[in-house]
Amino acid sequence: MASGQEGRVTAAVLIIGDEILSGRTRDTNLGDIASYLGVYGIDVAEARTVPDVIEVIVEALNALRSRYDYVITTGGIGPTHDDITADAVAAAFEVELFEHPDILRMMEAKYELTPARRRMARVPQGGELVINPVNGPPGFTIGNVFVLAGVPQIMRGMLQDVGHRLRGGAVTLSRTVRVEGSGEGVIAAPLEAVAKAHPQMSLGSYPFFEPDRFGSNLVVRGREPAELDAAVAELIAALKAAGIMNVAEVEG
Amino acid sequence: MASGQEGRVTAAVLIIGDEILSGRTRDTNLGDIASYLGVYGIDVAEARTVPDVIEVIVEALNALRSRYDYVITTGGIGPTHDDITADAVAAAFEVELFEHPDILRMMEAKYELTPARRRMARVPQGGELVINPVNGPPGFTIGNVFVLAGVPQIMRGMLQDVGHRLRGGAVTLSRTVRVEGSGEGVIAAPLEAVAKAHPQMSLGSYPFFEPDRFGSNLVVRGREPAELDAAVAELIAALKAAGIMNVAEVEG
Repeated sequence: MASGQEGRVTAAVLIIGDEILSGRTRDTNLGDIASYLGVYGIDVAEARTVPDVIEVIVEALNALRSRYDYVITTGGIGPTHDDITADAVAAAFEVELFEHPDILRMMEAKYELTPARRRMARVPQGGELVINPVNGPPGFTIGNVFVLAGVPQIMRGMLQDVGHRLRGGAVTLSRTVRVEGSGEGVIAAPLEAVAKAHPQMSLGSYPFFEPDRFGSNLVVRGREPAELDAAVAELIAALKAAGIMNVAEVEG
Repeated sequence: MASGQEGRVTAAVLIIGDEILSGRTRDTNLGDIASYLGVYGIDVAEARTVPDVIEVIVEALNALRSRYDYVITTGGIGPTHDDITADAVAAAFEVELFEHPDILRMMEAKYELTPARRRMARVPQGGELVINPVNGPPGFTIGNVFVLAGVPQIMRGMLQDVGHRLRGGAVTLSRTVRVEGSGEGVIAAPLEAVAKAHPQMSLGSYPFFEPDRFGSNLVVRGREPAELDAAVAELIAALKAAGIMNVAEVEG
């Protein structure tokens, strides 16, 4: 990203689960989290996907929480033996787990408290709950880490209790210029010229190939609306000056 | 993963691109790569998604290539200024880039060699090409790293030229037992009992919530067909013994 770094607030996403690494399940949480945090002006700066292995989770969590302002984890908070995220977070923060009385109460009101279900009440010392408006027990937060469910519907519900606890950055605005019928080989030079003229903006090219057409979506991102307007206008002009005529700003 | 580690062949996937971290584009390459490598008995042990920032790519690549048998990267090999994967790989391996004559020839036969397009001919010293059967210039491989395109159609095409270069492990077999109408809270105990009885197998629980039903897919993975058969049979028996009757093995 070419944009200036001062005032930038960053997050990392730590996706926990063998099923993502095996290809059995496709992750959609990263994109949802990135879109959600974008509204608060927080950039997802890195994501890692790790297996259900405690030492690997601890190492990744410690690397990410020291490097970025926030870490959001997904997965591994259910009742089964492979749900070890709470253990890993407690180990990373070098604290003990305790059975949170509010979670025990919530669960007791709904069903029998089996030993497996009691696992879901475990929260690291110093942790606070993240409301689960969907189904099942809550997530939790400790330090700069938010621990959410892996099931996408539940993860998205829990996210609603995260944003108000974050220190937001300046919101990044995004505009898209769509070029049809020209490849990146001819787009690159005008794109780079505009990127160089606007070092505070991030300009990227994302080609598409559809059965009956091809081209590229050029995405301009930045924090200053006036400069963003200028960069988009210059980009369209530079493309046309390079003989690329099928150019239009689009939604998204 | 609970399975034994001897003889295991591992890979990491390094997904390069601001557009994935911003949530604008959803990654599908990780799942495709994991499925492809699974056929060769190679486990994806970790994945990282990093922005188009050279130092970040270099650091991640060096961490992953020293830790796992193979690294597959996706993204950042087009002609635009933000396509810096070749630069990052060369920096990680501490070698220079050169313009590969075969790529220059391929491109010359198709279109004018603009400076932007020449960028796509750059390969680190010591690198070999990975055929691109779809569109545009090839990827490359150096050491234990394979550098592929980010566009999914092209990435999948390039993968076909990767497998025959890999030293495969024992293939991991996978079976799925579907439970409907019971939550993980009651499934956990029988599941854990079978997992403990089969430490060489990996057992995971992946809950689903659909408008008109809920339950969990229990996935048993392992390398020994006979032990896998036994574990699946024991799991079904253990679930039924726990009073969970809506249990059936399903495809995939």
